[in-house]
Amino acid sequence: MTDLNRRDLLAGATAIGAAAVTGLGPTTASASVPQSGTQAPGFYRYKVGSYECTSINDGARTFPMPDKFVVNLPKEEALAAGEAAYMPKGMVTVPFNPQLINTGSKLVLIDTGNGVANLEPSKGAVGRTLQNLQAAGVDPKNIDLVLLSHLHPDHTNGIRLADGALAFPNAEIMVPAKDWEFWASDENAAKAPNDMTKNYFANVKKTFAGLESKITKYEWGKEVAPGITSIATPGHTPGHTSFAVASGDKKVLIQSDVTNIPEFFLRNPDWHVAFDNDAALAQATRHKFYDMAAAEKATVIGFHFTFPSVGHVEKDGAKYRLIPSAWNPTI
Amino acid sequence: MTDLNRRDLLAGATAIGAAAVTGLGPTTASASVPQSGTQAPGFYRYKVGSYECTSINDGARTFPMPDKFVVNLPKEEALAAGEAAYMPKGMVTVPFNPQLINTGSKLVLIDTGNGVANLEPSKGAVGRTLQNLQAAGVDPKNIDLVLLSHLHPDHTNGIRLADGALAFPNAEIMVPAKDWEFWASDENAAKAPNDMTKNYFANVKKTFAGLESKITKYEWGKEVAPGITSIATPGHTPGHTSFAVASGDKKVLIQSDVTNIPEFFLRNPDWHVAFDNDAALAQATRHKFYDMAAAEKATVIGFHFTFPSVGHVEKDGAKYRLIPSAWNPTI
Repeated sequence: MTDLNRRDLLAGATAIGAAAVTGLGPTTASASVPQSGTQAPGFYRYKVGSYECTSINDGARTFPMPDKFVVNLPKEEALAAGEAAYMPKGMVTVPFNPQLINTGSKLVLIDTGNGVANLEPSKGAVGRTLQNLQAAGVDPKNIDLVLLSHLHPDHTNGIRLADGALAFPNAEIMVPAKDWEFWASDENAAKAPNDMTKNYFANVKKTFAGLESKITKYEWGKEVAPGITSIATPGHTPGHTSFAVASGDKKVLIQSDVTNIPEFFLRNPDWHVAFDNDAALAQATRHKFYDMAAAEKATVIGFHFTFPSVGHVEKDGAKYRLIPSAWNPTI
Repeated sequence: MTDLNRRDLLAGATAIGAAAVTGLGPTTASASVPQSGTQAPGFYRYKVGSYECTSINDGARTFPMPDKFVVNLPKEEALAAGEAAYMPKGMVTVPFNPQLINTGSKLVLIDTGNGVANLEPSKGAVGRTLQNLQAAGVDPKNIDLVLLSHLHPDHTNGIRLADGALAFPNAEIMVPAKDWEFWASDENAAKAPNDMTKNYFANVKKTFAGLESKITKYEWGKEVAPGITSIATPGHTPGHTSFAVASGDKKVLIQSDVTNIPEFFLRNPDWHVAFDNDAALAQATRHKFYDMAAAEKATVIGFHFTFPSVGHVEKDGAKYRLIPSAWNPTI
């Protein structure tokens, strides 16, 4: 009888919980407190000198491991790597984390996530940048600069709302000159080797349509915004760019996509992810960048690291390992 | 001049930021957006079957490495381990994470943190449990059960507000019978081998004064609350307890203090932390518990793991390693 009663109680509580999530039910109950059904907001602050930075989680996609997610590896080995990283069996999880830099005079958003248009279709998996910016107390109208590391959809598509309007209406948009040159070229588009790349070309056309006057093209090795320097890290795309953010005597490296998920491609820097434009160059860039980051003991922020996406990279023989930074309850 | 202007702007922005934090200043500004000065709330949800669990961050203390933080190791080696974990030079960082379990019928808080009385004295480093519960939408009045893993101050002192009133006024308080027997004994207190242990005895007396009628003593190997089973993990204290939280066919292990910080004592299970009552027994418990957790591939939640304090433990020869779980943007 005790067991039966408990089961009944649990069933009742589940019903109340479900009602609360839909907004139809009570928000408190005497017999039990409804479950929230929602995750905590995905933002995290860290200081770089006088700059206040915020890691903004756009979400994470979990999808069946494609046959060629790691193009130069048998699928079984990629599946094993996923399982070793405690990803759901047969699946791979890729997180997405734009970075917000408040220099004190400028509010800079580095990359924008998959776009809010993807929020509902993905059942909240991705497209969360705007809601997490809001949770962090940031009005999108106050963003001065959207700084794009490269022109892949998961980095660019957050510049638009679901209706196509600009998500950051007052922001200048900066793109790597080399990526613009590559992706905006109809000639290159005609030579796209596969559907994925074709879609990338089409996405650039659609996403940036009518924005030519808002866009500034930037070069490598320049201070593209106060304290933010562009670093050449090509391979993933022709113009793929990382950034050093420096203030006072402090510095962090925003690596963008030098690695896709670190459990795979930082741990195994010679594995090639399907999304690379020039995988051999991306591999060379990976070694060069992580050798430098490890030697400097630099704090590295990765777009595809698990949130809050801040850590340190160490050499481990011919491989690397990522040591995620401890959560700091203050800043 | 450019530099000077920028410095002036930064100084101005800092002043605005400080004013905004105190609530006296504007919350937006045209020249620059004030920095927030505050970290994101420290709570994180995870499901266990139909149960909704929330990791609640009480904060993290960073303090100069004591001479005998690791009692059976030269201090230099402990300092090196701290640096290897990217702790500030010469310091050690210890985080604190109570767990909230919403079974659907009961709201159970496992451990309570350092107490809100420590919030101001620690400059916000610890004592954050109540504010993070609030951020998670939890009214302390609705907590049905406070389940204590053992009677050390960082686990127990959150049961009181700064004025001594009960923080969770409607909650039953459950304590491990063996820990109560040990720490409530004047005879044992008189035999305390050092000041730290003397303080632990005095703290138990003070914290639980007048609460005898609210307290239930629990044994090991029992379902102490729906789906929550107490597991004997003695050594750290005589009655130190871990918990299995199970719902449907899902289970997690809440390890409490089987290890203090995992970078030290999970990685090196034979190192002894200063806070152990019986360090040799704690070491034996550590091996037994992690061998079991690794074999089961169990999700392990650690009070002293970095927030959100959820991960998996793997054997690595005679050592262990912790693989922190990926942040899940949904639940």
